[in-house]
Amino acid sequence: MALPLGSIVAALGGELHGDATLEIRGLAPLEAAEPDQLSFLSNPKYRQQLDSSRAACVIVGPASKDQALARGACIVADDPYLYFARLTQLWKREHSRPAGPAIHPSAVVDPEAEIAAGVRIGPHCVVERGARIGRDTVLKARVVVSEDCVIGDRCVLHPGVVIGADGFGFAPHAGAWEKIEQLGAVRIGNDVDIGANTCIDRGALADTVIEDGVKLDNLIQVGHNCRIGRHTAIAGCVGIAGSANIGAHCTIGGAAMILGHLTLADRVNVSAGSFVARSILKPGLYTGIFPIDDNAAWEKNAATLKQLHGLRERLKALEKKQ
Amino acid sequence: MALPLGSIVAALGGELHGDATLEIRGLAPLEAAEPDQLSFLSNPKYRQQLDSSRAACVIVGPASKDQALARGACIVADDPYLYFARLTQLWKREHSRPAGPAIHPSAVVDPEAEIAAGVRIGPHCVVERGARIGRDTVLKARVVVSEDCVIGDRCVLHPGVVIGADGFGFAPHAGAWEKIEQLGAVRIGNDVDIGANTCIDRGALADTVIEDGVKLDNLIQVGHNCRIGRHTAIAGCVGIAGSANIGAHCTIGGAAMILGHLTLADRVNVSAGSFVARSILKPGLYTGIFPIDDNAAWEKNAATLKQLHGLRERLKALEKKQ
Amino acid sequence: MALPLGSIVAALGGELHGDATLEIRGLAPLEAAEPDQLSFLSNPKYRQQLDSSRAACVIVGPASKDQALARGACIVADDPYLYFARLTQLWKREHSRPAGPAIHPSAVVDPEAEIAAGVRIGPHCVVERGARIGRDTVLKARVVVSEDCVIGDRCVLHPGVVIGADGFGFAPHAGAWEKIEQLGAVRIGNDVDIGANTCIDRGALADTVIEDGVKLDNLIQVGHNCRIGRHTAIAGCVGIAGSANIGAHCTIGGAAMILGHLTLADRVNVSAGSFVARSILKPGLYTGIFPIDDNAAWEKNAATLKQLHGLRERLKALEKKQ
Repeated sequence: MALPLGSIVAALGGELHGDATLEIRGLAPLEAAEPDQLSFLSNPKYRQQLDSSRAACVIVGPASKDQALARGACIVADDPYLYFARLTQLWKREHSRPAGPAIHPSAVVDPEAEIAAGVRIGPHCVVERGARIGRDTVLKARVVVSEDCVIGDRCVLHPGVVIGADGFGFAPHAGAWEKIEQLGAVRIGNDVDIGANTCIDRGALADTVIEDGVKLDNLIQVGHNCRIGRHTAIAGCVGIAGSANIGAHCTIGGAAMILGHLTLADRVNVSAGSFVARSILKPGLYTGIFPIDDNAAWEKNAATLKQLHGLRERLKALEKKQ
Repeated sequence: MALPLGSIVAALGGELHGDATLEIRGLAPLEAAEPDQLSFLSNPKYRQQLDSSRAACVIVGPASKDQALARGACIVADDPYLYFARLTQLWKREHSRPAGPAIHPSAVVDPEAEIAAGVRIGPHCVVERGARIGRDTVLKARVVVSEDCVIGDRCVLHPGVVIGADGFGFAPHAGAWEKIEQLGAVRIGNDVDIGANTCIDRGALADTVIEDGVKLDNLIQVGHNCRIGRHTAIAGCVGIAGSANIGAHCTIGGAAMILGHLTLADRVNVSAGSFVARSILKPGLYTGIFPIDDNAAWEKNAATLKQLHGLRERLKALEKKQ
Repeated sequence: MALPLGSIVAALGGELHGDATLEIRGLAPLEAAEPDQLSFLSNPKYRQQLDSSRAACVIVGPASKDQALARGACIVADDPYLYFARLTQLWKREHSRPAGPAIHPSAVVDPEAEIAAGVRIGPHCVVERGARIGRDTVLKARVVVSEDCVIGDRCVLHPGVVIGADGFGFAPHAGAWEKIEQLGAVRIGNDVDIGANTCIDRGALADTVIEDGVKLDNLIQVGHNCRIGRHTAIAGCVGIAGSANIGAHCTIGGAAMILGHLTLADRVNVSAGSFVARSILKPGLYTGIFPIDDNAAWEKNAATLKQLHGLRERLKALEKKQ
């Protein structure tokens, strides 16, 4: 598996300085690259690694061109990280093995499901009645798309994803719980990626909605009737309770938890591990994490935290005495 | 798909004010309801939405009857939310499409498993040797019920549920871990709902027990030898470590974490995102969440938190000087 | 199902005091053991339970021998908990029912996957092209091992595990996200256990690596390019972001979250529920948990926490005045 530098630049653009016939046999980070591999520098923080890298060629931005030339071949691109992303796509296309059947024979696809052209459905998938899968979408192994749910074009659903399980809805009655049947579905836009074992529940009455370009990592829970706005990216282990309304272009860090029935404006960034218990109406970065410490120090501080309000009162009293 | 108001009231009771022949074509929240849809008012907080709703008819409690009559048709019921829950059930029954086979041909059901009457087992399920599935229980797609586990009557297990994987038990030995085989099983009562990709581990010696009427949301982990008491409801992404003993009629908010070998009394409510590190023996609402803030404010407060015990000491010293 | 005491000691060693022909019909904790069951005392904290236990025989350490003899039969072993672990293994071996086929007919195993001798692959598993499964490894039901991933010898992967889904890698571009194809794989060592519905993502360029003897519980997320060192044990619901480098012999408590691109030294112990946002280079126990409290007390303290930095400033000001 090899690609000459010239054919990379022919496909992806950029300004090549070096031998176009040089064969590239892999992609690697600067510090790990072998002499037949291509690497990239996107973060100026790692500039020092450039000089010592053994890479055959390095993708750099215009500002690093001189430094890169001093060490050998390079491709100059406006956005080296984006160039690298597209290079991984090219690499995968060039080296992919012949694909299996469009719908794996072990998949259970209801005859009343609508499957568009170019769709691939992997082993042990289940696509139920009335579901619709858009053009060129890929369902990897063991994906479930339940009744009447709609997936857009060019989506990728990783193994174990469950789209359209019942939302968690029960009315209390005489000490027990009466099921609220979930009569809505899930509607997913185009170019959405959904990570392994992530679950998106169907709506109670209206639909749960995931807009175009949303990226969801693994083991995420999206409750019924949530809406996640365009191009929002959500890292692994996040939980989003029912009817949360999350804006476009947000980022939610891993294991963050978002309560239900609240709103996040567009371009809100939530730090990993934070618990969002109220609406956030202004773009910006929001955080709520207990800082980790050695256990002995934590124990003291955590114990004091339980008296914090009292401490404030004592401080106030002292201030008054002054 | 339509139901006349009269047939709804005939099935579910309630006091109809309006035209019994009016055809209802859907259920919707007050603010979204179309003129051929039925809605409900359960929370007096949303009373204002009643006047402006376009719904064909509204389910209300006795206290809102006059307000509802002023705008048009209504059904008066003692508990409008419960009425609504039962209406969703009626709606689903009336509009459900003909069911497939009781046991999907792709399911792998051991000949030594006991399957009661009325059970439905979806595609790609696995029911192992010695497992027992009670009457009218539904296993949606891709559910695993391992050896010797018992599921009661009228349960619903959503896609990806794993019942009876090994509990996490290892004895340390010479720097490595020696497996403790998990010889118990899982026993699940009647009317239990289990959400997508939730896992309930088998016990080490005795069984893990989920009592009647428990409701579990998606992506929950229940460790070996836990007991969850009757009618307790647990939201998504909760983790419950081994041998936790959770009472009846509890509610556990999403992404809460409960340590092992502790007890929660009946009627304990744990807020979402809280970490339960000790037994809670008195009913009530318990919380432990770091409040989210803009990142700059959080950074300052979190840094100070690491000195909190010291601050208390300094405050004490000041107080002594007074 | 019964084993005489004599055959247990013949298989596992230890010093038997009592009738070697006594038939043991089960294993149970001290307080629950029936008169035909075998129990163990590993933690001196539970010594009192020894006297009142109805167990037929008890496994104890040398220090508890006299107390145990006073109540009846016992097996004295250097490490009673380890002895118990091996006894569960013996018990399982002796009582296991005949196994089904090595590769279940419903499993989808690519002809270009390499399956070593003694491997068992359960129903509805998927093993993709180029994957390699080592000797005597067990894939329970519904496990996915994606292209080119490598699993060592004697591993156990529980139902719903997903090995080698794409890591979460996207480059921002013009308000949307450009996919970074994940060209690495996952390499898992020997004697690794992986719990139900746990996901380990493939690397972006290099591989994600799980070393020998690692034990992972259920519903864990391991991001791309992580490395988890030998014999580290990780409890349920933990999230580990990409490129985290976790040492050997660590323990990570349930629902802890570990940020990406950081290092945990060998023998670091992270308490359950803690958020690790920085490298930890010294062995020890680390914690960061908001202590749970009744909701009213929490509300007061949490509100004050948002002013904590200000309180410190006020305290400083007071101190200056002294």
